[in-house]
This record gives sequence, C-alpha cells and structure tokens, in this order.
Amino acid sequence: MTQHFKKVNKEDLDYFSLKLGNQNVKLDKESLTEYASDETEDISISPEVVLFPQNTKQVSDIMAYCNENMIAVTPRGAGTGLSGGAIPLFGGVSLSLKKMDQILEIDTKNFQARTQPGVITEVLQNKVSELDLFYPVDPASRGSCFIGGNVAENSGGPRAVKYGVIKDYVLNLKVVLADGSIIETGANVLKNSTGYNLTQLMVGSEGTLGIVTEIVLKLIPLPKYDKLLLVPFYQPRQAAEAVNTILKSGLQPSALEFMDRDAIELALRYSDEKPFELDKEIQAHLIIELDGNKEEDLMEGIEQVFQLLEEYQTGEILFAETAAEKEKLWKIRRSIGEATKRHSVYKEEDTVVPRYKLPDLLSEVKRIGTIYGFKSVCYGHAGDGNLHINILKENMSDHRWNNELPIAIRELFTFVKNCGGTISGEHGIGLVQKQYLDIVFSEKELDLMRQIKKVFDSKGILNPGKIFD
Amino acid sequence: MTQHFKKVNKEDLDYFSLKLGNQNVKLDKESLTEYASDETEDISISPEVVLFPQNTKQVSDIMAYCNENMIAVTPRGAGTGLSGGAIPLFGGVSLSLKKMDQILEIDTKNFQARTQPGVITEVLQNKVSELDLFYPVDPASRGSCFIGGNVAENSGGPRAVKYGVIKDYVLNLKVVLADGSIIETGANVLKNSTGYNLTQLMVGSEGTLGIVTEIVLKLIPLPKYDKLLLVPFYQPRQAAEAVNTILKSGLQPSALEFMDRDAIELALRYSDEKPFELDKEIQAHLIIELDGNKEEDLMEGIEQVFQLLEEYQTGEILFAETAAEKEKLWKIRRSIGEATKRHSVYKEEDTVVPRYKLPDLLSEVKRIGTIYGFKSVCYGHAGDGNLHINILKENMSDHRWNNELPIAIRELFTFVKNCGGTISGEHGIGLVQKQYLDIVFSEKELDLMRQIKKVFDSKGILNPGKIFD
Repeated sequence: MTQHFKKVNKEDLDYFSLKLGNQNVKLDKESLTEYASDETEDISISPEVVLFPQNTKQVSDIMAYCNENMIAVTPRGAGTGLSGGAIPLFGGVSLSLKKMDQILEIDTKNFQARTQPGVITEVLQNKVSELDLFYPVDPASRGSCFIGGNVAENSGGPRAVKYGVIKDYVLNLKVVLADGSIIETGANVLKNSTGYNLTQLMVGSEGTLGIVTEIVLKLIPLPKYDKLLLVPFYQPRQAAEAVNTILKSGLQPSALEFMDRDAIELALRYSDEKPFELDKEIQAHLIIELDGNKEEDLMEGIEQVFQLLEEYQTGEILFAETAAEKEKLWKIRRSIGEATKRHSVYKEEDTVVPRYKLPDLLSEVKRIGTIYGFKSVCYGHAGDGNLHINILKENMSDHRWNNELPIAIRELFTFVKNCGGTISGEHGIGLVQKQYLDIVFSEKELDLMRQIKKVFDSKGILNPGKIFD
Repeated sequence: MTQHFKKVNKEDLDYFSLKLGNQNVKLDKESLTEYASDETEDISISPEVVLFPQNTKQVSDIMAYCNENMIAVTPRGAGTGLSGGAIPLFGGVSLSLKKMDQILEIDTKNFQARTQPGVITEVLQNKVSELDLFYPVDPASRGSCFIGGNVAENSGGPRAVKYGVIKDYVLNLKVVLADGSIIETGANVLKNSTGYNLTQLMVGSEGTLGIVTEIVLKLIPLPKYDKLLLVPFYQPRQAAEAVNTILKSGLQPSALEFMDRDAIELALRYSDEKPFELDKEIQAHLIIELDGNKEEDLMEGIEQVFQLLEEYQTGEILFAETAAEKEKLWKIRRSIGEATKRHSVYKEEDTVVPRYKLPDLLSEVKRIGTIYGFKSVCYGHAGDGNLHINILKENMSDHRWNNELPIAIRELFTFVKNCGGTISGEHGIGLVQKQYLDIVFSEKELDLMRQIKKVFDSKGILNPGKIFD
C-alpha cells in the first residue's frame, strides 16, 4: 500500500490557525500522544496536528484545504472506538469534533433531537429523558462516547434487542465531504423514499465518506419502568438457549445480555463494588431487562421469565428493583471491556450471527481457543446474536500472538460467515478488522464499496486506510 | 435527454428464449400492453419484450447480455407502483419477477424469512402468521404487490407508525447488478457494522442499482390482539392534532390513519359495502388501531384514547371489535386509491413532513388547490406525517392540468421541504416525481446519487430515466 500524503508544514498550520484560532490547533506532545490512539488494543500512531473546529463552516474550510493539498484527515469523536477508526494511520490531521458539543434542539412535538457530533451519548439521553423522551441507543461507553462516533460506527448496545441500533434513529445528517462541500443526506421525517438512502450509507461508514456535523435523531416516549434480572447458569450453552426461549415466548426484553464466567470474573476483580457473589460452579450469566409503562405488566413479565427459566439449570436469580441495584449490575456489565484492558493485552472481536447460532458460536470460540492456546472472555448482546470475544494474550508468546492468532481469527470469522453472520455487529472494521473483510465480502462487493468511497472522496484523504486499503 | 439503447432484435429474442425457454419470452400485444403501465396515473409506454426469469442465474444471464448489447431493462414486480417505476420508458426489456414467487425459508428459530421477490406481501404475512410470527409492513396494495417491489420502493403502510417500513425489516439481499454479477449486500443478522450499508442503499433504489432476487427479512412475534376505532372529526385540523396528542400520551398505536371527507366519500361511493354512515358535518376521520398481547391492556388503551379525544369535537366513534368489522373499515381505507382512479384522472403525491406539521400541510394543500383550481383527496399515515394527496383533474382543462398543475405541485413541495419534509414517504420518485427532485436535493447531492448509480450500472441500462435523468 502506498499513499502519497503531504506532510503538514508551517504554511498549513498558519492556514489552520487563521481559520480556527491558535487555541484550536494543537501540536504539543501531549495532544499528539492523546490523539495517537483510541480504545483499540494497544495501537498508537501519532497525527501531525490536532484540529478542533467549532462549526460546520470550519470543518468545510479545513477539508477543502486538506483535499487540495493532499493532507490525510482522520475524524475523531471521543476516541472510544474499538476498531481503530480514529487512529491517524498516515499521520496528517486528527480532526476532533469535541468542541462541536451542542444539543441544538429537542423537538418535543415531533419527537426529534438535532445535535452536533461531539455530544456525549449519556448527556443526550439524560436531557431528553427530562422531557419524558427516550433515546435508547446505549453503548457501554455511553458516559464518554460521542453521538457522532456512534453514527460513524453504527453503534448499538444492550437495548438494541428491543429498540434497534443508531441507524434506526438517524433521520437526517449534515455532512462535510472530503472536498469541503456540505450536504444533507435526507429529511427530518420518519419515512423517506426520495432518492438513494445517503443517510444509511453514511451511518457506519466510519468517517471514510464524510464528516458528520449535524445529526437529526428520532426519539420515542420514555418507558416509565424497568426491571432487571441477573441469572446465573451452570452451562453457557443453556444461557444462550434461554435467550431464544424468552424471545419465542413473545416477551420483548429491553436487554438480553450474555456474560461468560471469565467476563464476570474479570469485571468483578477490577470493580470496587461486588454486587453479588460468584458461585464457583456458575459458568455464565444473563442480564434480562424488561421495560414498559405499567409496573404490574412488568412484574407479570418477570414471573413469566422465571417460569421459562425453569427448564434450565440456573443458580440463584438476582432481582434488582431499585435504581441503585440496577445500576450496580449494569456497571459490572459495562466494565468488562475496561477490565479486560487492565488485565492483559487483548484483541476484541465483535462477531454477530443469527441469534439461535449463538450457542454454536460460543462452543466454536472455545474450541479454537483450545487449539491455538488462547483464553477468551465472551460477552455481549445475546438477544441480537452479537457476541464480543476478547482474546487474551496473557502468557501467549509474541510469536504465536502475531503469527498464529490471525489464522485462528480467520477460522473463527469463517465459521461466523458460514452461520449467516458477519464480523462486526457494532464496532466497525476500522483498522484492525480490514484484513478479514474478504471473508465476508466478495471481490465484487468490495470493489463496489471502494468505488463508493471514490465517489465521496476521490483523492482518498478522508480516514485513509480504514475499512479497506 | 438522449439515450442510445439498442432495439431488441431477432437475435436477442433467440438468446432470451434459449436461456429462459420460449414460454418465458412474451411479445404478444396483450403482454406488451399489460407491461406498458403500472398503477401510476394514466401513463403507458410499451416494452419491446417481456421476460420472466425463474432464478437468479437467469436474471444474471439476461443482465449480462443486455449490458453488453446496451438494451434497456426495466425490472417489474406486481405493477402496483405509484411513481411509474415499472414503466419501460425506453422500451427494451420489461423484466418481470413474477415467476420468482417462492418463500424459500421461514426460520422460526431466528425469526427470519427468506423469499424471492415475486412473493405477494399478503401471502408472506399469512404464511408467517400461521407460525405466530409477524411481518408488519402492510402497503394498501398488500393483496397484490410483491415483496420485491416493496423493497424497491421502501414501502410502508399503516403500521409503519409502530413497526417501521420495509427498510427496517430487510437484513440481507441477493442482487444481480447491471453487468450480471451477483452480490450479497449484508448478512442475516440484526446488527451490522461491516463495511458500507449496501443493503440500505439498495432498499428504495427503485430498481436502478440492481435487481433483487432474494430477500432476507426480519420477523417479530405476532401480537395476539388488536382493536380498531374510526373517529369522525368536524375539523380536519383537529384530527391531525389528535394524532399528536395520542402519540405524546405514550400510547403506541399500530395505525394512525387520516382520511379527509373527500377521501371517505369517494371510497364509500365505489364500495359495495357501507360499514358506516357519513354524517354531513364530518370533515375527516382517523383510524386508530392498537395491538398487543393482552386484551385488557388494549381495552385500557382504547379508554385512554377516548379520554384523550374528549378535548376535540368528534362525531360518534365506531369501535370495531370483530375481525369482520375491522376488515370492513380497513377495506374502505385501502380502497381510496382505487376509488380515486375510478373517479377521475388524478395525480398522487406522497408528501411526508415532521408529523406535527401535518395540520399546516393540510391547510396548505387546500389553499394551493383554491388558487390553482383543483380539488384534492387527502389521506394517509398521519402517525408518520405521511400524507397522500390525490389531486383530481375532474373538470380542470387539459391546459391548466398540464401547464399550471406542475407549478402548483412545485409550490406544495417547496412548502413540504421548508417544513423539514420531503416529496416521497413510500411511493418513490420513479418517473413522475423526478422533475421535482431539485426541490429537496442540491446539485451536489444529486450528483453523488448519479455517481453511485454509475458505480452500480456504468452503462445506465437498468431502469433508465427513473429517479433522475
């Protein structure tokens, strides 16, 4: 792969400072280090400069300039990505959307929010919930990740099983293209059959097709109540099977999360609080959440879940009723990624299969792990068939890690593909998964994507080296 | 616009017959007339030949041949389209998907159906409901339209207000491109962040990017009960406002349909059955449907609707409880389009706005009608802000109809755009709306779409002259 990007020089910096103000052009070592990596594994590649535009016009000016001067631009949200999307592979500009952090409008009449990309997901959630509205897309990193980054990666989270992922909420986008032109992808409406769906093409395109500077999101009425169960299983397979049983019953849980023993163990080890004891025979857990507007219906639903679970061998089920109890359980669930990071060098896979295949996928992960000598932490959104697999390096030799693991992952992804699944459910391809893209797409399919990329970014300056080379 | 398509000659016909069999190559006058038009207004343009492939391979063979020989190909579902998408503007081949009418699999474990494009929507709905599953996308033409056509137009229908449109159910597509190559757009999964979303790019692309030959659809559990209300209003504006009141209450109706007096009058006039009397003071109706798994909850919901409606001036509310009563009301609603057609030459617009703007849109339609001298029948999916406007020719002179009406429509669409809306919610742009596309898209946005078209169909043989020139 050869890319001929121009290095950022004095003249370029002067232009950036002129357009953005000195304080929004950062070259200091600390900034360059901070923007060299995101939450993906242990990769670090420094940009040449970090820019902080404050409005669409500034983004447009920068893009037009960089496009003309062939400077690579890597857009960046909060840097919580797990596939290396925000890592500036070719140096150049790291374009942070951090200072575009305004919620521009919450339209309580039409149930819509219009935001800038740098709004933290949880901030938006809290803001709309004060108005009895609900923005249900809820990645584990919601306390720090940005809406813009969520759009770029097509983020999901635990509630996707009932409410869908961010693509199901994005109605319209304002986007700056590589050449600086500004477009709108759709309209602020719930249904749209007007031209090609540029909105959905942009969602999940990982900052390779344009820089999203404004987002119109659908909101829904806030459900009044929710209830949470933590169900321990003696056999991981039974946990995965119970997911199907629950969904077939007609219940619509707002979360159906799976965690294998290693995932919970790690999370508890690095947690200050231990909301429950982990029995030594327990091999997996499900978190089951029900939500709705009538408390008695939820209690009936909970009873129904208990009945459905009778056919499985479960440990003592924890029923979290208060907000504090629920939050403790969710915190454990959300901390698995962070705990893994603290524990060992690791690789995170984001496989997704038709959900009934989940037990098979789990077995296959463990089987491949035994052959290639790695331990894995498996958890994720069982209701969607979306299993996160954290492969731990621990004592594996660098040689095996670097040379054999890619073969193991290829084997795993081939299995996933053969199940009708694919290699990323919500983290994106970015930098670290692109080598495996040929498993799920034919050369023709990849070629279509590359050509679409060219339509939007003819010189290839926008997040170069991501998704494909 | 100049297009240089080759006319279909003897040699071409021999090739088609060789690949498809004689019985699947039709040249008789009756066939050519049948395939010259769809349900769009009174437009008729004859193809040179109608082909009936029976599998993906045959579609691929035909496309490769037509691409090489520069023969225009217009794919066709059931011909129920309302924007002229299936009209063979440049003659050539009308490619009917009628004989690809198999439901290939209903996967009750993963809640998915895999079908060919020629399956009638209602056939699929009935088939999956026998298995307690639900495919909720429900266009008025569901008794005759094809799933493939629904994909092409991103069809919706009354239940979209709760359940979304077909784009929310399409997980994966098998597609034959213009050059005959066969691709899959995604995977059979509920979440996908793997490369660009070709699936959603294909949905709603009106047969201009490829020919869909296999569709994987998400299914959901079948709700056990539904209840239906027909609510007459003395003022259309109040009906539109009541929609917002109901949705703000947190109720999630499975349909919220608006019909103005003229719509109901027409439907009743051409209907065999009159399930209700139309009081002479009544100016509009809402159909309100609630569905769910617990009958008592639905009854409570119905009571809540009655309470919410107390602030409006309504006539006597009709509560349909039996399947037969409900079906009678739905039949009236579904027959409006057909009744309009029988009544007068007309144009059907498919405007969509943020739903709170619906009362304003209604007023604007009538205001413009007064100025330009046309009567209109307004109805549609009020819960989504999707208003169908049938403009009746009646006694309007041909001159005004042909010369002034486009100006009136332009005025209307500009109003829609300024509301944050767009010009098609579920019918597509096709042939008849493309002249207005510049109202909602900038030249840059249109150019992106044209270039995407080129990526998929470099010679422009696939459904030429649709969406844009």
